[in-house]
Amino acid sequence: MSAAVAAVADTIAVLRREVAALHAELPRNQLVAWTSGNVSARVPGADLLVIKPSGVAYDEISPANMVVTDLAGTLVDGDLSPSSDTAAHAYVYQHMPHVGGVVHTHSTYATAWAARAEPIPCVLTAIADEFGGEIPVGPFALIGDDSIGQGIVQTLAGHRSPAVLMRNHGVFTIGATAKAAVKAAVMCEDVARTVHIARQLGTPLPIAERDVDALYARYQNAYGQ
Amino acid sequence: MSAAVAAVADTIAVLRREVAALHAELPRNQLVAWTSGNVSARVPGADLLVIKPSGVAYDEISPANMVVTDLAGTLVDGDLSPSSDTAAHAYVYQHMPHVGGVVHTHSTYATAWAARAEPIPCVLTAIADEFGGEIPVGPFALIGDDSIGQGIVQTLAGHRSPAVLMRNHGVFTIGATAKAAVKAAVMCEDVARTVHIARQLGTPLPIAERDVDALYARYQNAYGQ
Amino acid sequence: MSAAVAAVADTIAVLRREVAALHAELPRNQLVAWTSGNVSARVPGADLLVIKPSGVAYDEISPANMVVTDLAGTLVDGDLSPSSDTAAHAYVYQHMPHVGGVVHTHSTYATAWAARAEPIPCVLTAIADEFGGEIPVGPFALIGDDSIGQGIVQTLAGHRSPAVLMRNHGVFTIGATAKAAVKAAVMCEDVARTVHIARQLGTPLPIAERDVDALYARYQNAYGQ
Amino acid sequence: MSAAVAAVADTIAVLRREVAALHAELPRNQLVAWTSGNVSARVPGADLLVIKPSGVAYDEISPANMVVTDLAGTLVDGDLSPSSDTAAHAYVYQHMPHVGGVVHTHSTYATAWAARAEPIPCVLTAIADEFGGEIPVGPFALIGDDSIGQGIVQTLAGHRSPAVLMRNHGVFTIGATAKAAVKAAVMCEDVARTVHIARQLGTPLPIAERDVDALYARYQNAYGQ
Repeated sequence: MSAAVAAVADTIAVLRREVAALHAELPRNQLVAWTSGNVSARVPGADLLVIKPSGVAYDEISPANMVVTDLAGTLVDGDLSPSSDTAAHAYVYQHMPHVGGVVHTHSTYATAWAARAEPIPCVLTAIADEFGGEIPVGPFALIGDDSIGQGIVQTLAGHRSPAVLMRNHGVFTIGATAKAAVKAAVMCEDVARTVHIARQLGTPLPIAERDVDALYARYQNAYGQ
Repeated sequence: MSAAVAAVADTIAVLRREVAALHAELPRNQLVAWTSGNVSARVPGADLLVIKPSGVAYDEISPANMVVTDLAGTLVDGDLSPSSDTAAHAYVYQHMPHVGGVVHTHSTYATAWAARAEPIPCVLTAIADEFGGEIPVGPFALIGDDSIGQGIVQTLAGHRSPAVLMRNHGVFTIGATAKAAVKAAVMCEDVARTVHIARQLGTPLPIAERDVDALYARYQNAYGQ
Repeated sequence: MSAAVAAVADTIAVLRREVAALHAELPRNQLVAWTSGNVSARVPGADLLVIKPSGVAYDEISPANMVVTDLAGTLVDGDLSPSSDTAAHAYVYQHMPHVGGVVHTHSTYATAWAARAEPIPCVLTAIADEFGGEIPVGPFALIGDDSIGQGIVQTLAGHRSPAVLMRNHGVFTIGATAKAAVKAAVMCEDVARTVHIARQLGTPLPIAERDVDALYARYQNAYGQ
Repeated sequence: MSAAVAAVADTIAVLRREVAALHAELPRNQLVAWTSGNVSARVPGADLLVIKPSGVAYDEISPANMVVTDLAGTLVDGDLSPSSDTAAHAYVYQHMPHVGGVVHTHSTYATAWAARAEPIPCVLTAIADEFGGEIPVGPFALIGDDSIGQGIVQTLAGHRSPAVLMRNHGVFTIGATAKAAVKAAVMCEDVARTVHIARQLGTPLPIAERDVDALYARYQNAYGQ
């Protein structure tokens, strides 16, 4: 085994632990029912990704049963079949080189906006911080080929948002790491819920575009450690 | 004890453990208040079913206090009275030979649709996947005789859906196994909630019938391991 | 110590454990925020009750810090001040001899109906089962004298319901035991939520009065062990 | 080290434990998503405060990683950067000498009222008790200078309420102690939710001003131990 191959094997071992652990955030943050969401990470330095196996319960997830595929979604390592959303994750990694992690959920409030094909307006400072503007809607797309991946990539190309609401379906989020994509998925549902509730009794006030820009710039640079 | 009788006794012991364990999914997935939902399993190779006893709290459920009845709902084995919904479960097993598990809940959002006698429209890919179309409404029926069972069987006969919303009452779901019926109950509440929320601020977009068919066919055949 | 006095002391020791344990059901069933709800039990054979102390957090509750008062609400045993709702509980025990337990909460959905002074209509079989009809509204009453107690007793006198929605305030429930009153509080919030959600998108269908009577009669006699 | 300095050091050690422990109440009471809320305490006898570090997860919070700043928000003790909301907390301590604790959240229902810039009307006895009237709305303010702090102080000056809904942003609460401010944050979200739900199906009845005054006076003086 060459040093390069050994390095990739080490990276995959680390990512198996990280991706398995991040799946616990999905039920913990009430983003999923039964087995319906998934997290993946790109394997840096290789055309590979680590993802959840299909139909496995969240409390049965372990580093050992995570699966590795290439960027066509073909199984490379692992005993189980990969998530049926693998093709969409793989397409994102192929076409968005800065993306290191992808998350997919049917989280309730975000999916409700998606069912109406309505973007979430940027009416909270938390939306300006994390999404830099409205959270956009992607097209209706059937599972089974590149359609979902194309819809994600084309929609996110025109936005600062790391989240896209796929019509009649659910949410995909991206990040520099899998953890950042999970954070975006948590924040997307949180703001989808708050704006929904605000809208139930009237119209949320807008935030001026220059204020959205200022909030986004500060949060992306000054927040955290 | 004949070999056949011993095999049924072994099966019942396995199903007592399985049905007891599946009851924990009801509070965990927020489908029940106090003692108001129940899970049963058919005993293959015998005209029997395993079900929850009446009015027992979910954290007092154990394999030992599950009860066994025949398909008329008469107690065959167990120290406690069977669930007051046993007649409905038994009727389903009598008239739907492919059903191996039945679940009943008053889960909040699904019951809200049932209170208005309004089917849940198929406006999410998750509904097409699991239910193959709208989730239908069954008739109002009093407990105490075959009425509820008849309502379930007659309604489900015309649909691919494993869930029926019983008017002014709650949900019954069926499955090849008790676990599949529990999954249907979890997914039914999840989509009932999402479509309700989508409808609060407008009209969810429809999914074309051929797309519903494609999603259902793929999910029933390709999802999971 | 006479035998009669010793018996009361034993009963109080049992009720301290029971009432302390039942308080855990309030946060578990999401009926309370911070310290805002309370459970009491009548001491049979004595004009006494056991109740929560005022302003104590639910995870600091123990049998030892429960307090005992007479039916005027005066402290008889315990190191802490009794709940500020003690006068209301005491009034109920004085005027409703069949009541063995009382619960008070500000549970969200039930309190929302109370804020509009709107009874919860009997449009679910679960309401017919537990409440035997609509859940009625009591008057607005200030804390500090008999007003709340009077409002509870006068309102419940005309109904089969063990729950009353006190206007702009919250819920009081009664039962033969403290556990039965806790069950009524859990079911009251559950049906308040479901009917609220049903009403958001239309009008729940009514249940015929004779069907309500039949459901109530069966549930009160045939349910449970 | 002088006795006075030693006393402040002891106080800080106590407050680090207290503030760290109080952060657990934020997720427990469902007031926060990911890392988005924070608690601080004034250090009595010194122009200092103890606060959460920026972007740290709630289950990684410990007394040791809390940070100490002066009342200009400049780091005085601690290994991590202070919360990006520190300037707002510090401004409150500078200008409201009776305040010993401050909490900031984006809790869902309170933030929904804030998105519409709509105060929460005093239509529940629990609002009269804790807030003594409506919960007011503060101005839209960008993070980064004194704007948010000024908005909090100016708005609360005209109200008995310990909570202010900052427009398009979230909630700030104050208290004599950090624990009292946390209680106000919990109660603010609880009543924001209940009044929202009451309003969805009609108009909550008002409470007469003299009754609000009576409830507030009693609760502030007679409640608790």
